Amino acid sequence: MLSEFDLIKHFFHRERPGRPDVALGIGDDCALLAPTPGRQIAISSDMLVEDRHFFAGADPFMLGHKALAVNLSDLAAMGARPIAFTLALALPRADEAWLDGFSRGLFALADEHDCELIGGDTTKGPLNICITVFGELAPGHALRRGAARPGDDIWISGTLGDARLALAGYWKEVELSPEAHAQAAPRLHMPTPRVALGLGLAAAPIAHAALDISDGLVGDLGHILAASSVGATLDVDALPAGPALARQDHALRRRFTAAGGDDYELCFTAPVARRAAVLEAAALAATPVTRVGTIETAPGLRLVDAHGVPLDLGLTGWDHFSGS
Amino acid sequence: MLSEFDLIKHFFHRERPGRPDVALGIGDDCALLAPTPGRQIAISSDMLVEDRHFFAGADPFMLGHKALAVNLSDLAAMGARPIAFTLALALPRADEAWLDGFSRGLFALADEHDCELIGGDTTKGPLNICITVFGELAPGHALRRGAARPGDDIWISGTLGDARLALAGYWKEVELSPEAHAQAAPRLHMPTPRVALGLGLAAAPIAHAALDISDGLVGDLGHILAASSVGATLDVDALPAGPALARQDHALRRRFTAAGGDDYELCFTAPVARRAAVLEAAALAATPVTRVGTIETAPGLRLVDAHGVPLDLGLTGWDHFSGS
Repeated sequence: MLSEFDLIKHFFHRERPGRPDVALGIGDDCALLAPTPGRQIAISSDMLVEDRHFFAGADPFMLGHKALAVNLSDLAAMGARPIAFTLALALPRADEAWLDGFSRGLFALADEHDCELIGGDTTKGPLNICITVFGELAPGHALRRGAARPGDDIWISGTLGDARLALAGYWKEVELSPEAHAQAAPRLHMPTPRVALGLGLAAAPIAHAALDISDGLVGDLGHILAASSVGATLDVDALPAGPALARQDHALRRRFTAAGGDDYELCFTAPVARRAAVLEAAALAATPVTRVGTIETAPGLRLVDAHGVPLDLGLTGWDHFSGS
Repeated sequence: MLSEFDLIKHFFHRERPGRPDVALGIGDDCALLAPTPGRQIAISSDMLVEDRHFFAGADPFMLGHKALAVNLSDLAAMGARPIAFTLALALPRADEAWLDGFSRGLFALADEHDCELIGGDTTKGPLNICITVFGELAPGHALRRGAARPGDDIWISGTLGDARLALAGYWKEVELSPEAHAQAAPRLHMPTPRVALGLGLAAAPIAHAALDISDGLVGDLGHILAASSVGATLDVDALPAGPALARQDHALRRRFTAAGGDDYELCFTAPVARRAAVLEAAALAATPVTRVGTIETAPGLRLVDAHGVPLDLGLTGWDHFSGS
């Protein structure tokens, strides 16, 4: 007799050939990975909670995508190649349409990265999604937060701020046209983990430090500066705004690119001598990158405009937990 | 400026020498494991939800212990040696006394098994504890559910039923004396993962199949039978009752040993020729074991009494999710 929760599990069981480095998948007390000899295993866990990381009633397909995307983004920021993930799920009830959408969104992104679901847990409770993701990389090649060096360029992948703009629309902070909303909302609900770029930057290796921007660039770059014991100057007007944000006014553009949240772009540093290599890695990964600042010996983060004039965007009260 | 959730994180950051196979712990986008060459990595995730897996207001020290114990129990059931774990935690608020107790209970057990906290996530939300644990084992040595063979003995570690008896006391199904409650309750709140026994049974290798009993022996043994395409006869009167349950009436003893829940003992099968080796492994692990039945070719699970007479304990309606 199948219980409600056995039925749930069936949405996550798939009959398909697994990866050769997954020695055992779902169905026993543990899953088994057979790591490539000499490689390290990169591991990250993220927990997504309703009303905090996503709206109640959020589209389940997009939610399945996002739950895995934010974890793959951590692998990308480390320069690791995705292998597998576990999924622990608390659900208030077994809603078949929800499970169908969620699992389709999840597996669409998982398959794109050949990342196999190898185990997890399902239970009744307030909606909570906890994914732990596994990747591999060569020892010494990880893109660490503490590896930025004075003189490094600061780079950003893709564009910033459209996820925050979509949120501003939902929150009625900004009046968005239907077109602007349609352009911005996917950046909030279905972020693109920059896995190929992270791999390219780590493999050569090209980049020094990297992280993914989940809580806003200024706050997240601060983690690199603290871990590396360095400072930086950031050219706020060089920050690449998302296409919807790019049509908003200048002040909002500055604010949401510098301190938006939910961008899931990479922020990385690399030596000036590696500029051509960065651009080549970006081209191979089909991911645009923009140079936005410089790592410096003097501690602190200096925000400047296009003319190098210091800016105070009033971001001091920014709580880097509010956006994530 | 430390936010509420930075404070929380401080309870889980410890300055101490890490394991050599943990190349990078808490603080970056990912943790990094450097697996022992040639070993497989065993992985298990469990999510614990308030009011389902533990009572609201549960003692935080015991909860910290239990959250890790149920995961270590999965490693034990596979025969894997613990390495590390991640912790994702949703909390309604940052209660310092709660965090202090929880982290102490968690680390007391973690240190006992040299299992290092390497990362995770903290967020605001309905109380939810999701741990993913990592262990290592030699390829081919995992104690799989599908490895039971006709003729194998069925063994149980420790004793069964006291956790269920404690629950029966809370639920007022049974009137428990204060002494009986004091004896039974630790089995519910602070289960002992049988890590050393699992390692001993897998290393030689001695056992064929194994799992940990979390949802009641009859239901869990059913997973071994199904995965191994075999049947079994189980001597219900041979099942070792916990000391508190042993003083209850015969019918309750049978019911709670056969189909209790939250035991976190190992159920394993081993060839008759390996009985002495099983007992030696048990002695080395300082963990009592009891032989309780036989794996057979004929499908189905036959419950019998001490005289071999078939029993019907009316367990058919047992929902193996209700107890876990």
